[in-house]
Order: sequence, then C-alpha cells, then structure tokens
Amino acid sequence: MGLEQLGDRLIRFAGGSSGVWRVLAIRSVRGEALPAVERVAVYRGSGVSSVESKWTLSGVISNTRYVERPEQQELTLKQAPLSRGEATRAALIPVRKTAAWWNLTQEERRAIFENKSHHIAEGIRYLPSVARQLYHSRDIGEPFDFLTWFEYAPQHSEAFEELVRTLRDTEEWRYVDREIDIRLARD
Amino acid sequence: MGLEQLGDRLIRFAGGSSGVWRVLAIRSVRGEALPAVERVAVYRGSGVSSVESKWTLSGVISNTRYVERPEQQELTLKQAPLSRGEATRAALIPVRKTAAWWNLTQEERRAIFENKSHHIAEGIRYLPSVARQLYHSRDIGEPFDFLTWFEYAPQHSEAFEELVRTLRDTEEWRYVDREIDIRLARD
Repeated sequence: MGLEQLGDRLIRFAGGSSGVWRVLAIRSVRGEALPAVERVAVYRGSGVSSVESKWTLSGVISNTRYVERPEQQELTLKQAPLSRGEATRAALIPVRKTAAWWNLTQEERRAIFENKSHHIAEGIRYLPSVARQLYHSRDIGEPFDFLTWFEYAPQHSEAFEELVRTLRDTEEWRYVDREIDIRLARD
Repeated sequence: MGLEQLGDRLIRFAGGSSGVWRVLAIRSVRGEALPAVERVAVYRGSGVSSVESKWTLSGVISNTRYVERPEQQELTLKQAPLSRGEATRAALIPVRKTAAWWNLTQEERRAIFENKSHHIAEGIRYLPSVARQLYHSRDIGEPFDFLTWFEYAPQHSEAFEELVRTLRDTEEWRYVDREIDIRLARD
C-alpha cells in the first residue's frame, strides 16, 4: 500500500534545475511563497526522481466533484488533451482553500463554485485552446489542496490571462488562502 | 510531505495478534477476502506501528461529500462520539465501489446514495446508539475506497445488524464490488 499504488493517477512536480519546463515566472498570489527555481520536472506514477529539487508538489487524479452531466458532456466534446505539440506554454497553479470552504457542504460548495462563480462555464469558454488537468492534494498530506495545470500555445497566452483574472475575481476565490502562480515554457 | 502530514486525520487499522480490539468474526461479503486475524490495532496520525501485522488498512478523514446542511445539523445534534465506555463492540467494514460508480457525477451519486438508498436517513435512525466514522482510502492508493467504522454497546448489536442489512439491500450497494465485514469486541 502507498501512493505508488495509484499508478498514473499520481503526479509529482519537482522544482529545481532540471526538467523540460523552464520557469518564466513564479510568484505568490496569496500566502506564503514557494522558492524560486529554474525548471520544473513532471513525474507520473511511481517513477521516483533521484534528481535534486527545491520542492516537490504531489497530486492525484480523482473523481469529479462539481461537474454535472450536461457540463461533463460539453467538456468531453470540447476539451483538448495534454501534451499537444503546439502547447509550449504551461501554468502550474497550486491552491489552498480555507477551513470555512471545507466546512461547507457539497451543495453549498457547488453553489459558490458554479452558480455564483461560473467556474466550469468560464473554463469551457477557453476550450480547446487551454488544456487543463486538476490534481487533488488535500487528502495526501500536501501543503496545497489542489494543483491546477494548464497547457496552451503562446498565441493563447492573453486568453489564459483573462481566464485566470476572471476566476480570481469570483466569490469562490474569497475562500483561497494560498495560491502560487508558476508560468512555464517548453523549448 | 507525505501521509504523516495529515496528523490525526490519518488512521491505520492493523490486523494481527495485538491491539485492543479482539476479532469476533471476519468474512468477505463480496469479492476477495482478507486474511483472518485475532486482533486489530488502531493507530492515529504518524505513530508508526512496529508491531507485526497480516494486513494494514489506512484511511483519511476528509470533507463531507453527500450530507446536506439540514442533515448535517441533525447529525450534529444526534451523533455519539467514538470511544464511549459502553461501546465495547465495533465493526470495521472496508468497501470498494465499481468504476461505474466513480464515473457517475456527484449529483448522480448523491441521487443514488440518498434519494434512492436513504443512506443518511437510515444511519440517522440508529443514532446515538451506533457511533460512526468514515475514512476515505481511494485517493491514497489503498485496496478499498472507504473504511467504515462503527462502535456500539452489546445491547445494540441487533439494531446494528438491521442497519447493515438495510444498507446492503439498497441500490447504492449494487455499486459495491468488494466488502469485508469485521466484527470486534473490546475487553
């Protein structure tokens, strides 16, 4: 037993001096910062890195929490896969939410997440330009609750900035108490 | 980083020859069995057991998934804490659900869980006699999705059997593909 048993559902992002993703910028949006690094390496599954890193963030692909069936169908139709050749830009945005958020019930969280903040609907507007994968970290003892990962082509950078700005302006984001924004480029 | 960071949210049940809980019965309800053991030891947080065990099952206390606010309020009013002196009987029931369950959306799962199967309402009927704690295991690479733990006084054993029979008869339980039933007594 252990996280290795999760297989490809487990991901580790290692910040250091190696990895295919070069760091363009790393900043704290809210709360404690993360040490600056030059590169981020991505490991899937149990492949353990022997590479030196300043920090490692882990997450798990889990079942959906807020998406409802019609939204799911729209997402399936429109979303782009990760690792497209043209998607040479990426963003890794680790987020932690407050205790107040986690003390809400599921339906109260969904109401803030979608009915008031339109998190899913806003995300869908940027498909398929911005590919996206969510990793859950809260229940594996990580410092963040989620790791959100986005990939896009350079010409969609401004669209991505718009998406991020829109989400940070929502009621949902009032429950975010730590957020780091890491922008990356693949050579 | 690691599961130890979860502190008291992490629990480990170790089946072997030591521990305060003596095994009265252990049987597979569905799917692969778990080796028979004499006793079960319970460890919270990072306290690592040096004790030999035949198996160890781990789980995490997480946020609520299906309970809505009025149910939450009723649960808070009626539920009993763990470790009551008179609660010398316990049941550890690890459960795994099918891929079909996990491919449902949250609202579809809630509809089966409560609207059709009355999981919460049935559980509430047995409060405060049967104390209950749910641990999540699916996202930490465990063989089961959940570990459910119940504590009750010997005179409520029959009530507990009734609760278990009722739940196993629900539509929700059609999505269970592995279930072990372990009954325990504290001397």
